[in-house]
Amino acid sequence: MTDYTQIIVTKAGGIATITLNRPDKMNAYTRTMGQEIMAAMDDIDADDSVRAVIFTGSGERAFCAGADLTPEGGGQVFSDPTEVTDLSDPKVRDGGGLLTLRLFESKKPLISACNGVAVGVGATMQLAMDIRLAASHARYGFVFARRGIVPEAASSWFLPRIVGISQALEWCYTGRIFDAEEAKAGGLVRSIHAPDDLMIAARTLASEIAESTSAISVAMTRAMMWRLMSADHPMEAHKIDSRAIYRLSRGADAKEGIASFLEKRRAAYPGKVSADMPDFYPWWDERPYE
Amino acid sequence: MTDYTQIIVTKAGGIATITLNRPDKMNAYTRTMGQEIMAAMDDIDADDSVRAVIFTGSGERAFCAGADLTPEGGGQVFSDPTEVTDLSDPKVRDGGGLLTLRLFESKKPLISACNGVAVGVGATMQLAMDIRLAASHARYGFVFARRGIVPEAASSWFLPRIVGISQALEWCYTGRIFDAEEAKAGGLVRSIHAPDDLMIAARTLASEIAESTSAISVAMTRAMMWRLMSADHPMEAHKIDSRAIYRLSRGADAKEGIASFLEKRRAAYPGKVSADMPDFYPWWDERPYE
Amino acid sequence: MTDYTQIIVTKAGGIATITLNRPDKMNAYTRTMGQEIMAAMDDIDADDSVRAVIFTGSGERAFCAGADLTPEGGGQVFSDPTEVTDLSDPKVRDGGGLLTLRLFESKKPLISACNGVAVGVGATMQLAMDIRLAASHARYGFVFARRGIVPEAASSWFLPRIVGISQALEWCYTGRIFDAEEAKAGGLVRSIHAPDDLMIAARTLASEIAESTSAISVAMTRAMMWRLMSADHPMEAHKIDSRAIYRLSRGADAKEGIASFLEKRRAAYPGKVSADMPDFYPWWDERPYE
Repeated sequence: MTDYTQIIVTKAGGIATITLNRPDKMNAYTRTMGQEIMAAMDDIDADDSVRAVIFTGSGERAFCAGADLTPEGGGQVFSDPTEVTDLSDPKVRDGGGLLTLRLFESKKPLISACNGVAVGVGATMQLAMDIRLAASHARYGFVFARRGIVPEAASSWFLPRIVGISQALEWCYTGRIFDAEEAKAGGLVRSIHAPDDLMIAARTLASEIAESTSAISVAMTRAMMWRLMSADHPMEAHKIDSRAIYRLSRGADAKEGIASFLEKRRAAYPGKVSADMPDFYPWWDERPYE
Repeated sequence: MTDYTQIIVTKAGGIATITLNRPDKMNAYTRTMGQEIMAAMDDIDADDSVRAVIFTGSGERAFCAGADLTPEGGGQVFSDPTEVTDLSDPKVRDGGGLLTLRLFESKKPLISACNGVAVGVGATMQLAMDIRLAASHARYGFVFARRGIVPEAASSWFLPRIVGISQALEWCYTGRIFDAEEAKAGGLVRSIHAPDDLMIAARTLASEIAESTSAISVAMTRAMMWRLMSADHPMEAHKIDSRAIYRLSRGADAKEGIASFLEKRRAAYPGKVSADMPDFYPWWDERPYE
Repeated sequence: MTDYTQIIVTKAGGIATITLNRPDKMNAYTRTMGQEIMAAMDDIDADDSVRAVIFTGSGERAFCAGADLTPEGGGQVFSDPTEVTDLSDPKVRDGGGLLTLRLFESKKPLISACNGVAVGVGATMQLAMDIRLAASHARYGFVFARRGIVPEAASSWFLPRIVGISQALEWCYTGRIFDAEEAKAGGLVRSIHAPDDLMIAARTLASEIAESTSAISVAMTRAMMWRLMSADHPMEAHKIDSRAIYRLSRGADAKEGIASFLEKRRAAYPGKVSADMPDFYPWWDERPYE
């Protein structure tokens, strides 16, 4: 965990904080940064002490200024520079998408604390996070059409779900930079905070989750919501939540949840995500790139 | 209809009102209450005098305080207490989901008039209703993660469709109780009313439907919207609405609709949902639990 | 292009404007009007000088007052008057749906400047446009249930995506006429403008796209967002955007986009939608009516 070179990961009070840490480069994204975030996610998913994750950027100016287009940033960051002839070759895979698909699999809630500029992949990586908070000076830009490319990181799936198709298209068609107020009005961010209050607000929200809820309930809820919201019929959700209610209502966390409720005391859920997920989890097959 | 023990059903002016009626228990949900609501829905769908349905709770404090966890409430209400080994066994099916899937099949518009506390299944049953109104003192809670279980009643399909994935996750991750203002800001409720005005507002909306529109048009619209919004291509909607326009534009309700419009008088549509739905309705196969 | 009888098409500054032009009939929709709009779209998609499209209505009163129900309007406009026995016969196909499905295939951004009354197909045709602007006196109505028919033009797919299922149902259940403020509050329109400012605002937005972005990026973004937002997994988006980033990042528009960014000058993208779309475009099979 101490080997990261472009991010800083801290853990305290049930909360892991991942700080993008290239402040002299406005935390511009590199292939290495992406790999380090994915490694941190593997560590965090396996660590039962972590109940929620906050993402932020180092320094006061930027969350992440997009892909580092300079040679020192790794040059071509959008895809492997190797030339391939078959577009189903994994070398073609977009790096931002590898990251957001990894975030999609997270067992822990993901909160972004956007502390400044967030453009390109700096904006799109936040779409796979669950809840987005912004500093009042945050700036966003889905600038791809101004660079001759397209929204990456599976944005065409994530962004319309979060802000609606019309707002998604306007931001991507124009590629404009917009401020926190426009982001909030459009549904991209949940709340705006003074710069000094941003991390406090993110931690307050993360703590509300960490201190009040069952880790297994939250991990299951995350998988169910993100995966079943797209089903073509509510029966698909009913199949999974029936199984989950059946198993979990007989489990230790439910026993503690109901006992603590009736006794009007704070709950101490024994369940661990690392060991105690219901037997039918995961209920899906991995979706291949092809 | 007079045999219900935990709900009250009244019909007047084209509107059926289903009142959850365990006021001394804050209208806590039981297996019996769910079965009675489903029976009332069967009656209402078959009754052409009913054009819209309002759901509310008895008393001034609660819409429904969630599943009754006491022995007198039926004990284990989330699923059949029988132990099964195969999770595809129908005994595993979540009771809240049986209810919301029944509401999903409704041929009449469903309006909730949330007159107080609505937590757990008291909140999630409203997600399968079309339009939600709230009293100013209403309180909501998707409290499942604080009980060691998960959102049920197919919430992972319904809730993100109504309030978006980020708001859905925040409410379910925290399990917090929130007020009518937060519910409205988040998109869960359409409008907030003084307690004394809540039922008046719900009836005004229901009457607007009952007095102005074709029952067949409304039943078809309900099935089309809820079912086709999830299709992967607008052609799937075009297939159905082409058939519907073709059949209905040649029907008695369209004749009356256009005549009354041209004559600037109120329409009296002759079509009955019980007998006059288009020949291709229903166009879907029942989705099995498995 | 000068052969149109019920629309006017102008092109200037990278923007095509399609004006519905039956002002003495409040621009009521006819089969001919639909065919002319579709022909204009074919012309526009093939014309690289056009970067965005604005739709508006002629005169000051109406965008489009719905289907012309009079004999001179073509009589039966909803479907072919020929009687068929097989509902999969193409003669059954709804005319509004033929139009919105054609708009769905557009390679250029579509902006509606709603300058007055928009009811029936006058409202639903706008749902397949990307961004909707309204004059302050605009009025909308999804009046189908008051005519004994159902929402057409694939509205059951488009409308809930834009305004959410509950708002979509309320407007369609009641068939009420509502004003621009209600349309904006409900998410149907992006912004409201004084009548004299409406076209200025629409052109400003269209110009922002035309002057700042790659045409290929925008055409790809349009196809990706509308098609992949409904996928059941973000991997489906990742497959396409990986291919797009791979191809486009090696292309002339990306070279110009990055060069102009680093040189802080306005970009002049050489790519043409008519000739330079990536080799895997279109990546979908046509969806048949059946």
